[in-house]
Amino acid sequence: MSGQSTTPAGSGGLSRRAVLGGAGAGLAVGAAGGAWGGRASAQAPAAAGPGLGAARVPFHGARQGGITEPAQARVEWAAFDLLASTGRDGLAALLRGWSAAAARMAAGEPAAEGENQIALDAGPSSLTVTFGFGAGLFDKAGLADRRPAALAALPAFPGDALDPARSDGDLWVQVGADDALVAVHALRVLLRLATGLAAPRWLMSGFARTPGATPHPMTGRNLMGQVDGTNNPRPSDPDFEAAVFATGPDWMAGGSYAVLRRIRMLLEGWDTLPLDKQERIIGRRKSDGAPLSGGPGAVERTPVDLAATDPDGVLRIAPDAHVRVAAAASNGGAAMLRRGFSFHDGLLPDGSPDAGLLFAAYQADPARGFVPVQQRLARGDGLSRYLRHEASALFAVPPGAPAGGYVGQQLLEG
Amino acid sequence: MSGQSTTPAGSGGLSRRAVLGGAGAGLAVGAAGGAWGGRASAQAPAAAGPGLGAARVPFHGARQGGITEPAQARVEWAAFDLLASTGRDGLAALLRGWSAAAARMAAGEPAAEGENQIALDAGPSSLTVTFGFGAGLFDKAGLADRRPAALAALPAFPGDALDPARSDGDLWVQVGADDALVAVHALRVLLRLATGLAAPRWLMSGFARTPGATPHPMTGRNLMGQVDGTNNPRPSDPDFEAAVFATGPDWMAGGSYAVLRRIRMLLEGWDTLPLDKQERIIGRRKSDGAPLSGGPGAVERTPVDLAATDPDGVLRIAPDAHVRVAAAASNGGAAMLRRGFSFHDGLLPDGSPDAGLLFAAYQADPARGFVPVQQRLARGDGLSRYLRHEASALFAVPPGAPAGGYVGQQLLEG
Repeated sequence: MSGQSTTPAGSGGLSRRAVLGGAGAGLAVGAAGGAWGGRASAQAPAAAGPGLGAARVPFHGARQGGITEPAQARVEWAAFDLLASTGRDGLAALLRGWSAAAARMAAGEPAAEGENQIALDAGPSSLTVTFGFGAGLFDKAGLADRRPAALAALPAFPGDALDPARSDGDLWVQVGADDALVAVHALRVLLRLATGLAAPRWLMSGFARTPGATPHPMTGRNLMGQVDGTNNPRPSDPDFEAAVFATGPDWMAGGSYAVLRRIRMLLEGWDTLPLDKQERIIGRRKSDGAPLSGGPGAVERTPVDLAATDPDGVLRIAPDAHVRVAAAASNGGAAMLRRGFSFHDGLLPDGSPDAGLLFAAYQADPARGFVPVQQRLARGDGLSRYLRHEASALFAVPPGAPAGGYVGQQLLEG
Repeated sequence: MSGQSTTPAGSGGLSRRAVLGGAGAGLAVGAAGGAWGGRASAQAPAAAGPGLGAARVPFHGARQGGITEPAQARVEWAAFDLLASTGRDGLAALLRGWSAAAARMAAGEPAAEGENQIALDAGPSSLTVTFGFGAGLFDKAGLADRRPAALAALPAFPGDALDPARSDGDLWVQVGADDALVAVHALRVLLRLATGLAAPRWLMSGFARTPGATPHPMTGRNLMGQVDGTNNPRPSDPDFEAAVFATGPDWMAGGSYAVLRRIRMLLEGWDTLPLDKQERIIGRRKSDGAPLSGGPGAVERTPVDLAATDPDGVLRIAPDAHVRVAAAASNGGAAMLRRGFSFHDGLLPDGSPDAGLLFAAYQADPARGFVPVQQRLARGDGLSRYLRHEASALFAVPPGAPAGGYVGQQLLEG
């Protein structure tokens, strides 16, 4: 397939790569660093540095970008509702236009002839654009018979406080880049292309670590200060592909299902907890993410020992510790690739921060990924007292498009 | 003064520098690159790259940080109103606490003992914290007799559409850093320290270029795509210090006056203008910022020739072009150091982007800087039709604090 990597993957079958475009250099970055923690792999030290702008992730490929690549410094999420007049042909035109613009911008080219040069001097800065389809799309586009069963509505979870206006949507666009102007410009291009075809439903904006902000690659921290993502599946895991990427229906083979949750953190309460209380709630040391079961010599990647006790016989990982409840949920084989971003949207009327996590989980089947994990967490996780799930969405993220094709083509023309 | 640079300034008397802290390296960055355009100077190629996180701007010094340093990738602005019960002593305690925390965070240390480690692994990432005092502060703190005349209310300008809830304030805090988590964490530390002493009045969040996003230093672009800041005064200009930094009153000597404007851009109208129309409105080529008076060989820094005409005798810089009106305003000696950030806060109810420029201008005296320039621009600038000034504030930005001191000490204890 044109545009695909010719670099030996060595990363569990991931085929996408980012290319440092300056002076024709072709250094693979991205996939091996992954959403599972490290911002850049040992293969990719140049992802930070003078080449940050030039780093590019080809749009075309077997997978869409923005799933397994490291979380960029800036993300924009936008959901759209298809207009009644758009129909199947209009949807195909929209997706064709979106894919063409995304491919050009990801290559560092203007989105179209005569495009308005807003981010002209910046390179693509690892720009990825990811498209998703919500359950409502299929009826509106006359494709009800092709709606995946996996798009069945998520169950209600204890503690959910969902705002319908910021949930769901017929279409989803994720734009990520390491430069904010590049990301915002790309979002605006895509919004403009939707005019008359689909109406914006909600927008969210988030951030992750700027490349180079930490001296060496490591798992990122969320706004609670927790090292977040240690146990994310890795492409080298034997079941990575099966856990993250779907095999069907036909047009979704090689795609994934994305669960999005806007999770506000009750930071004022959390921040006043003593450190040892915070660590007990999580089950890990805050300083380095090492499991509390591992003793002073443990490191972040030390396996969690749920049976470990202290000399008094007390479990080192508390019964309601986040890592214990999450681990129990995963024992049934549940796995999902988390690729979240922090958000900070100012203060709520009561003065508390409107801040937290734009959580995204990718899986082959939400019923075997997010749903069982969240059912356990919502009931038994001590951390849940400090979280509010305020918005939710589920999208089918189709496979990538080959050069000359567009995302969703297998659905629209299949 | 402790904490000051020992590097020869060579930059118009600027004494502050950023230090790449890793492994004891001490490479001067920041000042010479400046808010006037270039993101990093030729002296400072390492400001982008693996050292991005380690780059630091010492808090202590003759000037506050965040004025002449390059605009960081992320900025947070917060205004506060002093509580009635706080008074002069409470204000002094707040400023002491704020300064101490800012100094520690700028050095890459926790804000306080037992601090919550949110950005623990990231270095300071060129963190700067800047404090300002609004006109209302002085009465509330029993300091009315020390209020600078320069804090007199700005006049109303034609076209102003100001929202009082997002304007003004007794205190202003600007936090900038090249990593968003570092900036947001610092903001939250400062918000927490204000509890019981000052109430948040408004918050705004913006962005500028991520270091390394462009292959070489150049003036940044705003959300209209314009190269913005070409004619910013430079530290090497003979009158830079006199234009930007105040000489009084006593406690303000070496400080500056900051005018802030939230300027929403009417981007949907702007983006549909043909390129040549956009360029006529500005008076510069969009691609590279070269003045339209300079012919094909002109570059961004080619001086503007306001008298140049085309073969038909038509002025190459239109009568209402932004550069002409701004230049006329500057002929009276008006000068200000602009250090703006873009913002994109989603969509307004009518679907148009709530986006534009967080404009900041620093000057020795607003009556000779921002005010005459804006009076001309608001009346005669063709660009004004595409801008809405939605919020406004004016703050006295005191000089910096020596090690062991705090910002505002000369006022509170003078």
